[in-house]
Amino acid sequence: MPSSLRSALRAPAPPVALADLDPRATPRAPGDKERTREQLVVDGQRLADLQERLYAEGSSGGTRRVVVVLQGMDTSGKGDVIEHVVGAVNPQGVSVTSFQTPTSEELRHSFLWRVRRAVPGPGRIGVFARSHYEDVVIGRVRELAAPQVIERRYREIVRFEEQLAAEGVTLVKCFLHISPWEQKERLLARLDDSAKRWKFRPDDLDERALWPAYQRAYETVLERTSTDVAPWYVVPSDRKWYRNWAVGRLLLETLTDLGPHLPEPAYDVDEQRDRLIDEAPLPA
Amino acid sequence: MPSSLRSALRAPAPPVALADLDPRATPRAPGDKERTREQLVVDGQRLADLQERLYAEGSSGGTRRVVVVLQGMDTSGKGDVIEHVVGAVNPQGVSVTSFQTPTSEELRHSFLWRVRRAVPGPGRIGVFARSHYEDVVIGRVRELAAPQVIERRYREIVRFEEQLAAEGVTLVKCFLHISPWEQKERLLARLDDSAKRWKFRPDDLDERALWPAYQRAYETVLERTSTDVAPWYVVPSDRKWYRNWAVGRLLLETLTDLGPHLPEPAYDVDEQRDRLIDEAPLPA
Repeated sequence: MPSSLRSALRAPAPPVALADLDPRATPRAPGDKERTREQLVVDGQRLADLQERLYAEGSSGGTRRVVVVLQGMDTSGKGDVIEHVVGAVNPQGVSVTSFQTPTSEELRHSFLWRVRRAVPGPGRIGVFARSHYEDVVIGRVRELAAPQVIERRYREIVRFEEQLAAEGVTLVKCFLHISPWEQKERLLARLDDSAKRWKFRPDDLDERALWPAYQRAYETVLERTSTDVAPWYVVPSDRKWYRNWAVGRLLLETLTDLGPHLPEPAYDVDEQRDRLIDEAPLPA
Repeated sequence: MPSSLRSALRAPAPPVALADLDPRATPRAPGDKERTREQLVVDGQRLADLQERLYAEGSSGGTRRVVVVLQGMDTSGKGDVIEHVVGAVNPQGVSVTSFQTPTSEELRHSFLWRVRRAVPGPGRIGVFARSHYEDVVIGRVRELAAPQVIERRYREIVRFEEQLAAEGVTLVKCFLHISPWEQKERLLARLDDSAKRWKFRPDDLDERALWPAYQRAYETVLERTSTDVAPWYVVPSDRKWYRNWAVGRLLLETLTDLGPHLPEPAYDVDEQRDRLIDEAPLPA
C-alpha cells in the first residue's frame, strides 16, 4: 500500500491558509459514500490485525506504540471518529483520553503533564480527543495565557513530541477541518434531535462566534508544530463518511509502515507441547 | 427484560464447590451457537445505546458508572470477551485496564491503590482484566503474602467495594469458569497456531499444575466477597459463544436496571435555535 493518503493530507508548508483547503474535498477516497463506507469496514479488519501484532510485540519487550491526536472545532466529529475507527480494534489494546478543562491538580503542573501521563504503554494505541493543542488554541483565543507563554508552548510541544518519537511513540495528528456552514447544520441537528440535545451547550455558540480567531490559531499550530517526526494531517471533515475513512486510513498507513511483527516464541514449541500432552494427572 | 441471567449465574451460597458447576452449561442461552451469536449482536446495539445514555448522564453531573471485573484461569477468555462485548460500545465511553504483575511503585501502596486509580469517571464503563482479586488468588496459591494478610484482604475488598457502590459504581464481577480439559485444548491451540504462539508462556504450565489450588482460592473468593452490592457471577466458559453472550447480557441487564436517562437540556431550545439561525455573519 503506497503511503498516499498521508502525503495527500499532510499540512501544507507555511503560511497555512485554512480557507484554501476545501472541507468538502475527498482526496483519494476509494469511491462514493457507500463504497467508502464499505472500505472503512475492510480497513478496520486490517487495523484490528495490525493492532493485535503491535500488542503482541509490546507484550514481548517491544516499546512501540501509536497515539492518534484528534483536534477540531466543535461538531467536527472527534467522538464519531473514535466510534467508527477505534471501534474496529480490540478495546484491550486501546486507551481513549478525552481532555477536558484542566482540573486544579492539572493546573499545578506543566500543560504537558497530563498529556504525558495519558501516553499508552508499549504495544498500545492511544487516542486523544483534544490534547495539549488546546493549550495553544483555546489558550490563545481566550487569552488564558500570556502571548509569550503561548509562544514558548509551541517549542515545548515540538520538543515533547520529539521525545515521544525517540521513545517509540508514533503520533498521528489529525485536524478535522469543517466549514462554519457545516457546523451550523450540525448544531441545529443537535438542537432538533431530543436524543442529541445533551451534546449542545449554549457556550458552543459563544465559541462559534470566535470562528475566525480559532481558524487563525489552528493555522499557527499547523505552521509551527507540523514536523517530520510528528506531522499534522488536515482531514476534510464536512463529509462524515470521508472523514471516518480518512482517519482510519491514516492510522492504517502508519501501522502498516511500522510493520509490527509477531514475536518468535522464546521457548521450544515441541517441548512445551510434549509437556502438556504428557502431563501428570492434576492432583485433586 | 427480567433480570434472569444475573439470578441464574449468581455465585451460590457458601460452601462453593466449583466442581459442581458445569463449565459447559449454557443457562438461559437464547438458542444454539449460531442463534446465541446473533443475539450478542442485537444485545450489543442495546448496550451501545445504554452506554451512550450513561455517558450523557455523566456529562451532565451524574456520578454513576459501571466496572466489569473479569477473572478466570489462563485461556478462560478475558481478552476475547473484551473484544466481543466491550467492542460493541463507543470506545470513548470505556476504559480497559489489564492488571499485570505489580510494579515497584504499585507495591509501595496498598493492593487496592492501583485498582482505585483505574476506576473510571462518571458515565464511563471500566473493564478490569484481572483485578484486586489476583492479590487473594495468586497471592494465596503462590504464597506471596502471609495467610493472615490474605485473610484481611477479603474484608478490605468487601469494604472497598461497598465504598465504590456508595460512590455510584456498579460492579459486575464475572468469574470465567473453564474446565482443565478445555484449558488443555486451548493451550495446545496456542502452541499449534503460529499467530497465537506469542500468547503462550512456559509459566502457563507451571500455573496449570496448581489447578486445584487455584480452584480452591477462587471458591474462597466467591464465598467471602460475593455481596448484595457486588455479587459474583460464575459464567460457564468452556463454550466461547455462550461466555461472550453471557457477559454481554450481564452487563446489559445491569445497565437496563440503572436506566440511565438523557439529561434534559438546561437551556431553552427555541432560544438557542433562534440565536443560531439569526446569528450575525462571522467576522473575517
